[in-house]
Amino acid sequence: MKNKTILLDHGSGGLAGQELISGLFLKHLGNPVLSVLEDSAVIETGVGRLAFTTDSFVVDPVFFPGGDIGSLAVHGTINDLAMRGARPLCLSLGMILEEGLSLADLELIVISIKESSEKAGVPVVTGDTKVVPKGKGDKVFINTSGIGTVPDRVTISAGEARPGDIILLSGTIADHGVTILTRRAGISIKGDLKSDTMALHRFVQALVEALPGTIHTLRDPTRGGMATALCEIAKTAEVGMEIEESGIPIRPEVEAACELLGLDPLYLASEGKCLAFVAPDRSRRALDIMRSQPEGKDASIIGVVTKGPAGRVVLKTAVGGARMVESLSGEPLPRIC
Amino acid sequence: MKNKTILLDHGSGGLAGQELISGLFLKHLGNPVLSVLEDSAVIETGVGRLAFTTDSFVVDPVFFPGGDIGSLAVHGTINDLAMRGARPLCLSLGMILEEGLSLADLELIVISIKESSEKAGVPVVTGDTKVVPKGKGDKVFINTSGIGTVPDRVTISAGEARPGDIILLSGTIADHGVTILTRRAGISIKGDLKSDTMALHRFVQALVEALPGTIHTLRDPTRGGMATALCEIAKTAEVGMEIEESGIPIRPEVEAACELLGLDPLYLASEGKCLAFVAPDRSRRALDIMRSQPEGKDASIIGVVTKGPAGRVVLKTAVGGARMVESLSGEPLPRIC
Repeated sequence: MKNKTILLDHGSGGLAGQELISGLFLKHLGNPVLSVLEDSAVIETGVGRLAFTTDSFVVDPVFFPGGDIGSLAVHGTINDLAMRGARPLCLSLGMILEEGLSLADLELIVISIKESSEKAGVPVVTGDTKVVPKGKGDKVFINTSGIGTVPDRVTISAGEARPGDIILLSGTIADHGVTILTRRAGISIKGDLKSDTMALHRFVQALVEALPGTIHTLRDPTRGGMATALCEIAKTAEVGMEIEESGIPIRPEVEAACELLGLDPLYLASEGKCLAFVAPDRSRRALDIMRSQPEGKDASIIGVVTKGPAGRVVLKTAVGGARMVESLSGEPLPRIC
Repeated sequence: MKNKTILLDHGSGGLAGQELISGLFLKHLGNPVLSVLEDSAVIETGVGRLAFTTDSFVVDPVFFPGGDIGSLAVHGTINDLAMRGARPLCLSLGMILEEGLSLADLELIVISIKESSEKAGVPVVTGDTKVVPKGKGDKVFINTSGIGTVPDRVTISAGEARPGDIILLSGTIADHGVTILTRRAGISIKGDLKSDTMALHRFVQALVEALPGTIHTLRDPTRGGMATALCEIAKTAEVGMEIEESGIPIRPEVEAACELLGLDPLYLASEGKCLAFVAPDRSRRALDIMRSQPEGKDASIIGVVTKGPAGRVVLKTAVGGARMVESLSGEPLPRIC
């Protein structure tokens, strides 16, 4: 490690990042709660369980179709809480501002934070602001951490996925990732490309309350995309998965942009979607509940959990073939969120 | 505001920062919990009160005598919880890494986080890592957020300071600030200048448990220094203060460095000290308890709270004069923490 340095790839949400986390952070900081590596930690307080999560946002550009770094930060942290079945209680807001940032732009971001936090019903209760000299940051970086309460008997986590579970996806994939990448590349695509950034806590709560004990795993496929999320869950739960490519919802303009840019939508971030692993006898009901809500109107059944081999995710393609799905690797897509 | 931009001064912890917070953040995000502007928010959960705090660290240099950005982040967040009388439960860790950062340096920082977190008994339970391209960050920025439980009947906050309260300081001031500034200026000072970065939660807990209900306000004088902390409390509690300059502990080498650099130690950060506002009849006992602990061996009584005018802090100088103490203003001392 002596002469090695941090690469952009370490931030892409793929294999390099996972190696950094296991090889460095968990090596030194590992403990039973942290090492689960879920979207949120769940901690016992003696008076009930809390979910706790943190996320830093460094997205470039700061403003993009469908949202901005402020709404993205609020939604991202709320969703990390929701993915453990928690009810979000409050958020913290840590800002790192670059000298020279326009105050008008900062105000737009703060207003966006206000609006998304009010709409979600999750207030910002504590904050911190730092300023770094010009050229030592990039406009604005935001950390949002969040606390939620975990209802009794809710034990949603990656390790709970089991053979036979039906895999549902709440809507289209790759909208956020492709919007950021085309915007950054200065490419204009026909159609209405925009980020899907959205809070999912009410959507998840409706699902969890209607189907107690049958939602085993939830995950929002952000950095690294759906492929990486599925591989991580398969590895953690020591199961396999079979995914039907034809079942994966994707907007035509997103597909077109991916073809143009040579990108695989399976590896591009969504910021308002979730994967749900559901007991087989309740999967139709789960799909109905998803589709009855605006956040899940395009929900779809995309596959099934198999006995293994552990960690193997197979994609059955539309033309009848099959290919192995791997975690994102060697493809630096930094600053997507 | 249209053509205004963020200045370094907005991050100094002084008046410009306070204006940014009131004029922008509170204007849009204000709510009863956030608007108290304490070191931590205290939230009612239905099953007990929680303290919640966030801090981003952008200190330059990353390694300094007495500590590094990792230990500073752990201690800073623990101390923000302690200043509300809370018992720290756990921390989150959000890292923003610059491409090209040496992995060996990163490992030193992670080991420092591990050691300070273990020593304090407060684990890191959730984390996040982002990478930004070279020139869009500066080595490493760290956000630590923290949760604590607030014991029943503990209501420590700035607004609780009242006329007659005795003001105690747990030790010497300005150690951290002067260490960072001399290091950054490349100045070598005789003697052993080093940061005082240290966790204060056990120290505070001993005080609060021994003297229930009589510790009204606690504050760690970080950015903006002791002067700014006192002015903020005086303003919030609508009281005045009289401070005896001769009572303020300061190490001779810190005083010498301040004279050399033309800096006022009252405005320089400490990272392991606290101010305590104590009911007059228990102030001697509080001082004894402070001095009986290693964190408070240099503790001192430095002044008294007066009826007002609200917000007025008067410093009685060693030579018999008196001067008004104001919040830090117009003096950009960025990246102290």
